[in-house]
Amino acid sequence: MNTVFITRRETFNAAHKLWQPEWSAEKNQEVFGRCANENWHGHNFTLYVTVSGNPDPLTGFVMNLKTLSEIVKREIIDKLDHKNLNLDVPFLSGILASTENIIIAIWEILDPIVEKHGATLAKLKLVETENNFVEYFGGKEPF
Amino acid sequence: MNTVFITRRETFNAAHKLWQPEWSAEKNQEVFGRCANENWHGHNFTLYVTVSGNPDPLTGFVMNLKTLSEIVKREIIDKLDHKNLNLDVPFLSGILASTENIIIAIWEILDPIVEKHGATLAKLKLVETENNFVEYFGGKEPF
Amino acid sequence: MNTVFITRRETFNAAHKLWQPEWSAEKNQEVFGRCANENWHGHNFTLYVTVSGNPDPLTGFVMNLKTLSEIVKREIIDKLDHKNLNLDVPFLSGILASTENIIIAIWEILDPIVEKHGATLAKLKLVETENNFVEYFGGKEPF
Amino acid sequence: MNTVFITRRETFNAAHKLWQPEWSAEKNQEVFGRCANENWHGHNFTLYVTVSGNPDPLTGFVMNLKTLSEIVKREIIDKLDHKNLNLDVPFLSGILASTENIIIAIWEILDPIVEKHGATLAKLKLVETENNFVEYFGGKEPF
Amino acid sequence: MNTVFITRRETFNAAHKLWQPEWSAEKNQEVFGRCANENWHGHNFTLYVTVSGNPDPLTGFVMNLKTLSEIVKREIIDKLDHKNLNLDVPFLSGILASTENIIIAIWEILDPIVEKHGATLAKLKLVETENNFVEYFGGKEPF
Amino acid sequence: MNTVFITRRETFNAAHKLWQPEWSAEKNQEVFGRCANENWHGHNFTLYVTVSGNPDPLTGFVMNLKTLSEIVKREIIDKLDHKNLNLDVPFLSGILASTENIIIAIWEILDPIVEKHGATLAKLKLVETENNFVEYFGGKEPF
Repeated sequence: MNTVFITRRETFNAAHKLWQPEWSAEKNQEVFGRCANENWHGHNFTLYVTVSGNPDPLTGFVMNLKTLSEIVKREIIDKLDHKNLNLDVPFLSGILASTENIIIAIWEILDPIVEKHGATLAKLKLVETENNFVEYFGGKEPF
Repeated sequence: MNTVFITRRETFNAAHKLWQPEWSAEKNQEVFGRCANENWHGHNFTLYVTVSGNPDPLTGFVMNLKTLSEIVKREIIDKLDHKNLNLDVPFLSGILASTENIIIAIWEILDPIVEKHGATLAKLKLVETENNFVEYFGGKEPF
Repeated sequence: MNTVFITRRETFNAAHKLWQPEWSAEKNQEVFGRCANENWHGHNFTLYVTVSGNPDPLTGFVMNLKTLSEIVKREIIDKLDHKNLNLDVPFLSGILASTENIIIAIWEILDPIVEKHGATLAKLKLVETENNFVEYFGGKEPF
Repeated sequence: MNTVFITRRETFNAAHKLWQPEWSAEKNQEVFGRCANENWHGHNFTLYVTVSGNPDPLTGFVMNLKTLSEIVKREIIDKLDHKNLNLDVPFLSGILASTENIIIAIWEILDPIVEKHGATLAKLKLVETENNFVEYFGGKEPF
Repeated sequence: MNTVFITRRETFNAAHKLWQPEWSAEKNQEVFGRCANENWHGHNFTLYVTVSGNPDPLTGFVMNLKTLSEIVKREIIDKLDHKNLNLDVPFLSGILASTENIIIAIWEILDPIVEKHGATLAKLKLVETENNFVEYFGGKEPF
Repeated sequence: MNTVFITRRETFNAAHKLWQPEWSAEKNQEVFGRCANENWHGHNFTLYVTVSGNPDPLTGFVMNLKTLSEIVKREIIDKLDHKNLNLDVPFLSGILASTENIIIAIWEILDPIVEKHGATLAKLKLVETENNFVEYFGGKEPF
């Protein structure tokens, strides 16, 4: 075994708000602060997708990054970029749009597709601002 | 004369859309593309405020950056951060929310205040994404 | 289990020197080089605090990042920012101010506080320059 | 045990192409795309070398980063910087110059040298562009 | 007049060497050092294209950045990306491939095209490494 | 005339404090805030040195960046790196160590040396933190 981890970075710009519909506006404001602004706010999100595997002897690739980029763009970026994460995204419907919940939803989509291409989805990292980011390893203890 | 230029960086996260109300939805889509998404999108904006002057002999300061930061936060960041630039900001009311128009509106607010503090507003830079930014020098030919 | 890792970035600017009081000046110079400059030097330090847990069903949060930021600022940043790490910081008293030793000391403070808030301190990263950083996982083998 | 991980960043600028000599030019073009350009292309590579260990009680160091930097420069950077990775580098001779294969080759060189200095090579990260990077943990499951 | 400056960033990865054919190999080595490596080296180049003008009253745009990006990609990036700047680029033929000479050649191409779109090419910036970059204002004294 | 501007980046890590000896400790605290901490604080400073001129027909260089880097390292970086800017630097003796005053002092040293090498010192930029920087053009109105 000679596992190598390769990562592809993609970006999307989106609006969202943090809002729990079971709560009053006051309670939302109290818990989520400025992130509960009724008319939305937004971010430049950066998504890092890490897959692992043994390099192929003929290509030297764990997985062709062009293929990985196309998958991430088609399945994730095209659906999130220049969208409202609360209103416009079927795979986030009914989910409170915290970065934690978004990264889990992205994992559910990418994991089986990466597996079909002979690699393993190892890690996702979703950067919301220069000060805040989340990482997810499929719920497992991480690397 | 010994003019030095000092710059303070501040950030805000906001939603907006590019939308010309005199046009049809189709025309807006054609001109502004994904930026015309009806339900908004958003960015992490970064604002650089540059002021110029001679360093004060006693403080070594063109202007106290703590003062400059407080002015920019009070006059600009508090009004734009976690807001919808099309809906929530009085000083952008009726203005198409392009970065060009936003930077001009910010200049109009900051220019007289900086002058009252004995310095000169020399340049604004507003970064929308890692690929796009605008700069403004009060409409004058720049440095 | 659906463990997500969230990270908050904070910064502080501080002076320090690397100096082993049991050694002569020559020996300190030999081992620590320019870092042993008697009159100190300094850095813009960047601290990344990563906590893990399951997202709360109501908030979507592993931990409210506003709370985490307030804890890190109150317990760490306010005590290190614009300070001399060898002279001004009670929790570093008697400790050689290497980044390795500083990160361990920060862990000891933050670990029990994060636990009281229902999350787990998973990782600290302390960046000293663009070329040098340390990471700590509580002494455990890391992720 | 109180394992800390310290990282040193080094950079090199090099030319390479992705080319499988067992294949036709058409097949190389099909698999590797623009990366198969016959006359080479190049990158600013960034290498992060992470070593782990317990901080020395006298120095506070897992390993002297000056020593680590000298090793990485002498063994790796001097051999890769301003070189052609396919033609000029003995330790990459006969190896398809993918980042996956390069990072494995670097590990083989650094691992025994770091061990002689009393620390453990824990991780390598090789950044090819802002969008692509690889990580390697000696073939083991990572942290 | 209300001149605003807008900038688009694009990137390309290329091989080159600094080599003066009128000189001996020794002289090339002496003047250009490692940059004269016979088998090339390479960089991740970043190009910033700044155009100026008055924002259009209907669009709020100095120039549609999508249009500017398409021009820069078609005229410059497609011809330089994953190429050898000494061998593969017609518009650099016979030109010593220093960043100074490259940026002048890019200006000659973009300047008339930007003008046809009703804006003015104001500045180019070409970043070769994190330590080195050049700027060009059409040979004029700059802003 | 075909003026091109080339820039070299160098870094230094230093301690300093903002302190006006003609004032009381209270007055210093009031004006300079945390920057007046008696036992110093510090920064990772980044210095950008921009020189201008016409590219040499034989080398394609405005000025050999290796030469420029050696000058900046010998004259500036070696004297500031891992030093106390208030105590250890002859050319800053008696000068209040604000970034404004430091950048003027650096200009006075570099300007005549760059001129001797056939180029013109066009601009200095000194970055103190990610939020604060100063620029200087020899006291002239800038570009």
